[in-house]
Amino acid sequence: MTTTALTRLTQLVTNDPSLGEGPLGLIQDAAVVIDGDRIAWVGPSSKAPATDNAVDASGRSALPGFVDSHSHLVFGGDRTQEFNARMSGRAYEAGGIRTTVAATRAATDEQLSANVAHYLAEALRQGTTTFETKSGYGLTVEDEARALRIAGEHTDEVTYLGAHIVSPDYADDPAGYVDLVTGPMLDACAPHARWIDVFCEKGAFDGDQARAILTAGKRRGLLPRIHANQLSYGPGVQLGVELDAASADHCTHLTDADVDALANSATVATLLPGAEFSTRATWPDARRLLDAGATVALSTDCNPGSSFTSSMPFCIALAVRDMRMTPDEAVWAATAGGAQALRRTDVGRITPGARADLTLLDAPSHVHLAYRPGVPLVSGVWRKGVRVA
Amino acid sequence: MTTTALTRLTQLVTNDPSLGEGPLGLIQDAAVVIDGDRIAWVGPSSKAPATDNAVDASGRSALPGFVDSHSHLVFGGDRTQEFNARMSGRAYEAGGIRTTVAATRAATDEQLSANVAHYLAEALRQGTTTFETKSGYGLTVEDEARALRIAGEHTDEVTYLGAHIVSPDYADDPAGYVDLVTGPMLDACAPHARWIDVFCEKGAFDGDQARAILTAGKRRGLLPRIHANQLSYGPGVQLGVELDAASADHCTHLTDADVDALANSATVATLLPGAEFSTRATWPDARRLLDAGATVALSTDCNPGSSFTSSMPFCIALAVRDMRMTPDEAVWAATAGGAQALRRTDVGRITPGARADLTLLDAPSHVHLAYRPGVPLVSGVWRKGVRVA
Ligand SMILES: [Zn+2]
Ligand SMILES: [Zn+2]
Repeated sequence: MTTTALTRLTQLVTNDPSLGEGPLGLIQDAAVVIDGDRIAWVGPSSKAPATDNAVDASGRSALPGFVDSHSHLVFGGDRTQEFNARMSGRAYEAGGIRTTVAATRAATDEQLSANVAHYLAEALRQGTTTFETKSGYGLTVEDEARALRIAGEHTDEVTYLGAHIVSPDYADDPAGYVDLVTGPMLDACAPHARWIDVFCEKGAFDGDQARAILTAGKRRGLLPRIHANQLSYGPGVQLGVELDAASADHCTHLTDADVDALANSATVATLLPGAEFSTRATWPDARRLLDAGATVALSTDCNPGSSFTSSMPFCIALAVRDMRMTPDEAVWAATAGGAQALRRTDVGRITPGARADLTLLDAPSHVHLAYRPGVPLVSGVWRKGVRVA
Repeated sequence: MTTTALTRLTQLVTNDPSLGEGPLGLIQDAAVVIDGDRIAWVGPSSKAPATDNAVDASGRSALPGFVDSHSHLVFGGDRTQEFNARMSGRAYEAGGIRTTVAATRAATDEQLSANVAHYLAEALRQGTTTFETKSGYGLTVEDEARALRIAGEHTDEVTYLGAHIVSPDYADDPAGYVDLVTGPMLDACAPHARWIDVFCEKGAFDGDQARAILTAGKRRGLLPRIHANQLSYGPGVQLGVELDAASADHCTHLTDADVDALANSATVATLLPGAEFSTRATWPDARRLLDAGATVALSTDCNPGSSFTSSMPFCIALAVRDMRMTPDEAVWAATAGGAQALRRTDVGRITPGARADLTLLDAPSHVHLAYRPGVPLVSGVWRKGVRVA
């Protein structure tokens, strides 16, 4: 197999404290050796072994490819007019998720697949090398299964979210919709997904419904994750912890008991600052979670309604500015944190044996991701050892 | 001369209400013809004249190249550690502007010029086709004149800001420093600049000093602009209006009288949301200025201390989210508004005869600049008729 070295990196984030300084395992004047699709060696540039190829990366820094553990990319249409009206303070009969459900059902397989490919390519150019994506805009047996099949053409991290909202077709029979989601829809969807998710929120699914949905999914071998406590206080976070969800996502409205539950669990608190940015909502309190000892991940929540960003660097800049994370904490959360939220150990770190997913920055330090907000600093991306951008 | 057409643009922002809908002069399914370095024709795609070359831009949108009317790019070093400490809540003996003054004085001409070229190229890739930049990190006769000479190698919009802070060399004699700035330093600098600027603020220059500095500059043929009312209420805005400054920049702390003065003047209020973002400061109230009838521009304030972004799209997203501008207003402010802040009529619009400066977005509408924050949507840039990115 061909070996390639990146040498003379001004700084390298490994996320392995045994390899370098602090929780990020920082190494100055570093080198990384890639062998096939794996990291073969990491250390000071001066000690790097000989390789077939070498890239001189002086003046630049590298970090693990971002792990975006929460997105909704299987959708049709967009919601430009709804966004424009909301941000302009104009009245607008917003169909919300229903608008996207109608457009998604109307789209062909080819259109949906091309859409996923478009946004994943966009994310990849911005340094994201692991992506989770969900169904949730089909809301029929056929449309949910189709969404998951299409998602699976593009990524291994596929989540069944039939329980995004109660389908408009069941507006008068929410219990009937839960039966569908936990019955025939689950039968059709389980073979195509790794995860099951539910939007536990007033107006969507309550605690009992969410428990029934996630429990049914677990019985079929799906691993649980949950949309929890985004718009209001509620049972979502504690339910997630009770069911050993890999992640409770949003976590905007938390009681002390919610924070304690997360801190004493293996459930990651995944914060999605793009959603608060684009809806002008209250920021989640990352500092409180971190100080309590919870594990925090950052993700884009990329979707056409509430957070249409695919940019992990943007989420890092917001997390530092508005959620009181340090630049180091935010970079960890966007890489190792995301990996933990997907229960992955092969990504989110640059250590021997890990998958060779690397993001190279046209900047001397990872701190520039927050110091230089909005600037496209990613100048190279390797995924599974292949330079893809 | 060769003519080139961009055709089938899903949407085009012309900033000429006579050419299309609303203040942005929007045209759907539009074409633009470039002849040499000028715009030759604008209109519906179906009526476009024949040209030598044509680019099919269906699915995409175009707008005038951004006009960034406020940056500080002639500097040495960076301030990563200061930023990191501030955002991490750690104590840090911040030298502030003085840190950059020391690094700038120590840098060679070649280093400074390479730095300006680096950041201008970065801005250009993000769609900025007109850039203003300032001196202000030299603060000696030689270092200020050198900064302006170097800036002039890269742009025509060069601003003499000897009055950035009182030079540390004159810490005990601020009046002596004003004499220097209005005397020998002005003599050395006036030939290399179009504009004169002053940081009118507590701890920098008061109203009387600022008036003396701008008046001296005007006498030498420089046009005034002013850093006004950024950190506190003060005389800056009204002084700017009194002296017919092209722009009063920052405008974060304004009395009703300040707003009235701006609304009844030709002085543009240039807002710099990157500074408020990166220092966690209060947002300027763009809505209040617009509702009063003032002209608002948006700019990056790109500098290594308080706002190290070169991204006009990022500033647009912040202006919409946090300063209550509509997406249309923010896009106008970042293009036509910036042009007005530089008293330019050849840029900031796509109309026959204007300079052929165009930004092409991989998105169907300019609204996506706010709808998709942080995403590098710029997929093509033409400057003076030449495709540069
Ligand atoms: Zn979501
Ligand atoms: Zn400034």
